[in-house]
Amino acid sequence: MFKLKLNRIIDQKNSLLCVGLDPDLNKIPPVIRKEKNPLLKFNQEIVMATCDLVAAYKPNIAFYETLGIQGWQLLEKTLDIIPSDILIIADAKRGDIGNSSCKYADTFFRRYNFDAITVSPYMGFDSVLPFLEFTERGIFILCLTSNSGSEDFQYLESDNKPLFLNVAEKVVRWNSIHNNCGLVVGATHTSDIQRVRNITPAIPLLIPGIGAQGGDLETAVTFGTDQQGKNLLINASRSILYASSDSNFAESAGRAALELRDKINKIRKNNI
Amino acid sequence: MFKLKLNRIIDQKNSLLCVGLDPDLNKIPPVIRKEKNPLLKFNQEIVMATCDLVAAYKPNIAFYETLGIQGWQLLEKTLDIIPSDILIIADAKRGDIGNSSCKYADTFFRRYNFDAITVSPYMGFDSVLPFLEFTERGIFILCLTSNSGSEDFQYLESDNKPLFLNVAEKVVRWNSIHNNCGLVVGATHTSDIQRVRNITPAIPLLIPGIGAQGGDLETAVTFGTDQQGKNLLINASRSILYASSDSNFAESAGRAALELRDKINKIRKNNI
Repeated sequence: MFKLKLNRIIDQKNSLLCVGLDPDLNKIPPVIRKEKNPLLKFNQEIVMATCDLVAAYKPNIAFYETLGIQGWQLLEKTLDIIPSDILIIADAKRGDIGNSSCKYADTFFRRYNFDAITVSPYMGFDSVLPFLEFTERGIFILCLTSNSGSEDFQYLESDNKPLFLNVAEKVVRWNSIHNNCGLVVGATHTSDIQRVRNITPAIPLLIPGIGAQGGDLETAVTFGTDQQGKNLLINASRSILYASSDSNFAESAGRAALELRDKINKIRKNNI
Repeated sequence: MFKLKLNRIIDQKNSLLCVGLDPDLNKIPPVIRKEKNPLLKFNQEIVMATCDLVAAYKPNIAFYETLGIQGWQLLEKTLDIIPSDILIIADAKRGDIGNSSCKYADTFFRRYNFDAITVSPYMGFDSVLPFLEFTERGIFILCLTSNSGSEDFQYLESDNKPLFLNVAEKVVRWNSIHNNCGLVVGATHTSDIQRVRNITPAIPLLIPGIGAQGGDLETAVTFGTDQQGKNLLINASRSILYASSDSNFAESAGRAALELRDKINKIRKNNI
């Protein structure tokens, strides 16, 4: 069951860190561009350098889909090199009417065997249900996103609550079906992480937005963790992947991951 | 420019019809399952039988993605057989932070050369902007969807308006940048189509939900069209694709498309 698996790997690795595997040919170090399959080689080096330090990897599907068939092959090969005890989250942000969401759920859970996926809530319950029905997998539903556009709709107030809290409350109810929901809450909204955690004390949170996006780590960890200091993944992508553009990029990525994991653990320890 | 192209093909074909190309191995007629590439053959037969009757085709990406690499090959080959004057809409419902939405926009507009795409509004402006920047393409943003889950969030009232009208109003502003936005409004919400059209008199609407989902065609056409009886696409998928499961399925699909086109035009004529 996803939540058990998540908290077990958090314990085993002593880490809340999730690394976004978003390889971009324009950003990878020049030294690796000469390789036969540069993006796969890049992912391999990053995974080797960080796999002892992370609880999860999160490939953003946009970065693979954009490469066409080669991108899907890259995704498959990348999934193969990730050690099996580490969770893999498809950052796909899918969601459609039931008929079509069934196909998306099948793609990511059956065909590619991801442990979890990110899903958009806009279309409501029947667009999310086909994912929930994979009862052993985790469904991270977008709640409050880390980007500036989150202000456009996610803060609209109804019933004296912003939309993102209305989403969180609905997800608590959806979670009662198979206990496999999570929420995505951006670290850039420092004061709101606590509001989400208050109404969902035991649901896993996936927090992006620290690192390149500038969210506050202290608040994210303090208010994002549950009472046991768990049920939380802190994601970093660019700040780890592109920690250096030299030939030592993998070593730098490993060092950036180690520093971030330790920083997170220090905050966590002070709060338990 | 997308809007011009849309209304030109509506005139040329005298049709507001859009056919969803969502091939499903479990639903295609038994006779075609024996073919070497049954889903491509199915799409070919459907396109041949309907291409004189439609303004647009709308492949739902979920149905292709779920087939892995073969699905993307099927999509490419399907795009190749569609006559070039007919619009092709990627029903993808994507949307992510700018960095990732750029990749999605690139995938569908540059790699696969779609004329338009469906996009989720939940993450706000910067998640939609990378799509808008393809100024010659159309961006249909989810407003009020046809499924039952649309009740969960799309009707939440703030500023005395449901969320879907707040989305529509924002899209009107986003549209002022490159004049290439559209809205998705489900035919199952008979009284609300008019509310959307009232605040967006000239924006193209894509209306799914008639046919298998049971939406009301009369209301959809009457209130969905602009004052010239244009800027509207009525989508039907299952009711045309699977009009018959016999060997004459293509003929039946053609007949179903013809009937629907003519029904739409009759309502349209009465309203101009």
